[in-house]
Amino acid sequence: MKLAALGEDRLLDEIFRHLPRGRAGKIVAGAGDDCAIVEIRGSKKWVVLKTDCVVEGVHFLPGTNASDVGWKAMMRPLSDFAAASALPHFALVTLIVPDQTEVAWVRGFYCGMRRAANCFDVGIVGGETSNTRGPIAISVSVIGFVEKSRATSRRGGRPGDDLFVTGRLGGALERKHLKFVARILESRWLTKNFSIHAMMDLSDALGADLPRLARASKVGFNIELQDLPVARGATIDNAISEGEDYELLFAVSPRDRNRLARQWRQRFPKLPLTRIGSLNRSSTTGTRKLPRGYIHFQQPR
Amino acid sequence: MKLAALGEDRLLDEIFRHLPRGRAGKIVAGAGDDCAIVEIRGSKKWVVLKTDCVVEGVHFLPGTNASDVGWKAMMRPLSDFAAASALPHFALVTLIVPDQTEVAWVRGFYCGMRRAANCFDVGIVGGETSNTRGPIAISVSVIGFVEKSRATSRRGGRPGDDLFVTGRLGGALERKHLKFVARILESRWLTKNFSIHAMMDLSDALGADLPRLARASKVGFNIELQDLPVARGATIDNAISEGEDYELLFAVSPRDRNRLARQWRQRFPKLPLTRIGSLNRSSTTGTRKLPRGYIHFQQPR
Repeated sequence: MKLAALGEDRLLDEIFRHLPRGRAGKIVAGAGDDCAIVEIRGSKKWVVLKTDCVVEGVHFLPGTNASDVGWKAMMRPLSDFAAASALPHFALVTLIVPDQTEVAWVRGFYCGMRRAANCFDVGIVGGETSNTRGPIAISVSVIGFVEKSRATSRRGGRPGDDLFVTGRLGGALERKHLKFVARILESRWLTKNFSIHAMMDLSDALGADLPRLARASKVGFNIELQDLPVARGATIDNAISEGEDYELLFAVSPRDRNRLARQWRQRFPKLPLTRIGSLNRSSTTGTRKLPRGYIHFQQPR
Repeated sequence: MKLAALGEDRLLDEIFRHLPRGRAGKIVAGAGDDCAIVEIRGSKKWVVLKTDCVVEGVHFLPGTNASDVGWKAMMRPLSDFAAASALPHFALVTLIVPDQTEVAWVRGFYCGMRRAANCFDVGIVGGETSNTRGPIAISVSVIGFVEKSRATSRRGGRPGDDLFVTGRLGGALERKHLKFVARILESRWLTKNFSIHAMMDLSDALGADLPRLARASKVGFNIELQDLPVARGATIDNAISEGEDYELLFAVSPRDRNRLARQWRQRFPKLPLTRIGSLNRSSTTGTRKLPRGYIHFQQPR
C-alpha cells in the first residue's frame, strides 16, 4: 500500500505506538503531540523539543524569496512551541540543497532564519548542509523549556469547554504563510492568566486539526460555522480547509469567557479572539462534520 | 556563485559568524562543531544538541534496504555524540518521502531507527513526515547531556599531542556505512580514563576531517601514512579520501601513550586503536599534505 492511500495520521498512529522511550527521563508528551515534552532529572522545568520541515513544492513554491523560506522554516516549529506554551531557546538547522544553488540563495535563507529566531531570542547553535538532486528541504529543530504548571497540549480539553481561535482563518496561502509570527507571546499570556485546558496551532487547517484536538482530549465538538473568523477575501470553506493559518486553537472553561474576552481586547487590541464553538461529551453524535483540512499524503491531486 | 564552487566549509564558516546566539544560556560549542553544547541555568551538566541528515542519492542509494537507511539516519548524529563524549537521551525524526512510497518502506525505516536508538537507550519522542516530489530525505535531531569535565570537541588539541584513530579506515561505502555503531561506548571510556584534548568522528574522511580538527585547535599535524590502519581490501587512498568511516579521531598527550595502548587492548580487544601521527605548532610547514576527503558540494563529478 502507498502512503497516499493510508494517510499520515494513520501511519503515524501505528508507528508511534512502537517507538522506544529510552531511559533518560519521563516522556510527558511524545510523538503525536505538537511538541515533545520530557522531564529531565534535576530540572525544575520540562524540556520541550520540536522538529519541523519545509519542502520546496510542498510548503513553498520554487522561486519563493529565500529569506521568506528561512523565515517560515524557523517559524513553523516555533508555532508548535506556542501550542505548548513553551519558550524556545536554541535551534538546529538542516539545509538540504542542490549544489547548483546560488550562494546568494543560501545567504538570503539564513537571513530570514536569523530574523525569525531573533523575534524570540532563539540561538541558532548548529547547522548542517547536504547536497541533493531533488527539491530544497529544510528541517529545523528547536529546544526550549516550559514550567510544569503552564505546559499545554492537545489533551486536556473537557466537555463544555469553549473553543477559541486567534486571528482570522483562510487565505493564508496567498498572503501570510511566509510572513506569520508564531503566537508565542499570546500563548504565554494565556497560560499566565488563564487555565488553558488544551491548545494547538492550526497548521493543517481547522478541519483537520480540530478533530485531532478532540480525539486527543477524548471529546466531541460543536462548531458554529457562522461565527468562524474568516479572513478578508476568503470563504468559510477556505477557513476550514486551506491550512497554513498558524493561529492558536484552545479550549477553556466557559466560566472564563467574559474575563478572557475583556482582558484579551486590552492586551491584544489588534488581534481578534473568537469563540467558534465548544467541546462536548460525544465523539460522534452532535458533532458538526467538518471538511478535511490539508493532510500530507491525502491532498487532492 | 554556485554552492559547488564555493564549498561547504567556506560557506558555513561565513554563515556561522553571523548566527544569533539567543539569551537563554551560554553556548559552549556552536555551529561548526560536531555537536552544539549549551549551558542551561540550573543544570549541572551541559546540554548537547545535534541534527544530521541522510539524503537518497547522497548518503544512500535508491533501493537500499529501508531498515539500513533508518539505522544510518539515527547512528549519524549519535556518532557526533561520540565525538563530544556525550550521552544521547532523546531523538526527533523528520521523514521527507514521496506519497507514492510503500508503507512497508516506512515501517522498515522506523524498524532500523528503533534498533539503532535502542543501542543507546535513546527515546524517539517526535516524528514528522512530509510529502516531497524528490528523493527521500531524513533528518534526525538528538538531545543529550555531557559532564562539564568530560565534553570533547575539535578544539583543544595541543602541539606534541599524539593522534589516534579507532578501527580501520577505507572501504566503508562498500560495507559498513549502513551498519556502523556509533563509538559512544569507546568515547565515554576514553574520557573517563584519560584527558582527551580534542576529538571528532570521521564522517567525511580523514583527509577532510583531520585538517578541520587541526584548524579548530589552531595547530598543524604530521601523519605517518604507513601507520594508517587501512581496512582489508582498501588502499591508503581509500582510507584518506572515501569517508563514512564513523571512527573516532582524537588527540591525547604522548605521556598517556603506553597506558592508553595497554588499557585499550584490555577493554576493547577486538577494536584496533592506532597512533597515526601527531599535532605540531605549525599550521603550514611540516604538514603532510592530505588528499581531500569527501566534502559536500565539492565531490568529483
